[in-house]
Amino acid sequence: MTPRVQVRRLPERGAYDREAIDAILDEALICHVGFVVDGQPYVIPTIHARDGDRLYLHGSTASRMLRTLEGGTPICVTVTIQDGLVLARSAFHHSMNYRSVVVLGTAVEVDDPRERLHALEVISQHVTPGRWNDVRRPSDVELRQTRILRIGLDEASAKMRSGGPKDDEEDVALPVWAGVLPLRLVPQEAVTEERVPEDVPVPEYVRHHRLAAPDQPGTG
Amino acid sequence: MTPRVQVRRLPERGAYDREAIDAILDEALICHVGFVVDGQPYVIPTIHARDGDRLYLHGSTASRMLRTLEGGTPICVTVTIQDGLVLARSAFHHSMNYRSVVVLGTAVEVDDPRERLHALEVISQHVTPGRWNDVRRPSDVELRQTRILRIGLDEASAKMRSGGPKDDEEDVALPVWAGVLPLRLVPQEAVTEERVPEDVPVPEYVRHHRLAAPDQPGTG
Repeated sequence: MTPRVQVRRLPERGAYDREAIDAILDEALICHVGFVVDGQPYVIPTIHARDGDRLYLHGSTASRMLRTLEGGTPICVTVTIQDGLVLARSAFHHSMNYRSVVVLGTAVEVDDPRERLHALEVISQHVTPGRWNDVRRPSDVELRQTRILRIGLDEASAKMRSGGPKDDEEDVALPVWAGVLPLRLVPQEAVTEERVPEDVPVPEYVRHHRLAAPDQPGTG
Repeated sequence: MTPRVQVRRLPERGAYDREAIDAILDEALICHVGFVVDGQPYVIPTIHARDGDRLYLHGSTASRMLRTLEGGTPICVTVTIQDGLVLARSAFHHSMNYRSVVVLGTAVEVDDPRERLHALEVISQHVTPGRWNDVRRPSDVELRQTRILRIGLDEASAKMRSGGPKDDEEDVALPVWAGVLPLRLVPQEAVTEERVPEDVPVPEYVRHHRLAAPDQPGTG
């Protein structure tokens, strides 16, 4: 934690322990990366994955964003999980339940071939655990077309809100429904590509993807 | 559209018509706002709402972010909807289906009392259509504690990917399942706050929230 990532307003919503930060980074599928070009900030969604004390980003060597980032420019990586809508009796106290992490730092391009392959495996396992063992691994040509960046987690904080609405006492008697509408990113039924042979089933790790709760319908 | 928001790589994924841009802004519950302080970019999640040609953001007058933004600094507002995981036969061709919008501009603080109240109604209706009519409206004190910012949509673009994996022809014969795992942000069952009288039901607009598909279980 540093002053730059300290949660100032509503400090009770802040967390700085790595356990809280890691759990949010690991659950979120995507992040939003902020960087600056000619004084203009840009915010671009992309896939991330955490491996211990580092975050990996990846993409095409033709990506303008990755080319900008590997120059060592300051970046901000933010992940946000939407947990629910908080509906209070007053408009003013409406809120959202969420968990988010902000990471500040600079990105370094990963050159070592072994770390590069490892990073791709970590990213694959982050999105769909189990997938990496089934697929054709990257060829040398594909690896040459792939840029991988690494960011440390030294300067990071989490912020979250949970629980019900916090109405003013004088509003509690109003005949208005109040509560929380939980939200969840839910896998739906998998759509098989048309040329997959009929005897190749939907894999277990897709039917029961890590985002699927055991009792969730629509996941196979 | 301007060169700054033009989709360069994979230009077929770009869209610049307002219909495409508006649909994504309207469906997404939250945005990520990027801004720069002392050369460091920050990316913060917050709620937005579109009203015609403008985006509204709001928050506490104590918010550091809103105070920074209303100074007329360049900002980037990005929204992203995660539509699915694209699982190809090769690691290299894995992808994600998504729809995103990037808006560049500067924020202006909204001073006019009528526009301020209108903006709060637009934000409320964006998150949960129907809610505004049921709740206690903001008091003068609450309005004084609320900052509202407006950003134009003059410089904006959409980027999206949909459809199945695009494998290399020589990989199609591999005995590997391939396809799409669709994802959706799904409302779960509403949780009523404990002091709501028993004769106050969960409102229809919560039971069938705009994010809920008609056939989706778990929405009441």
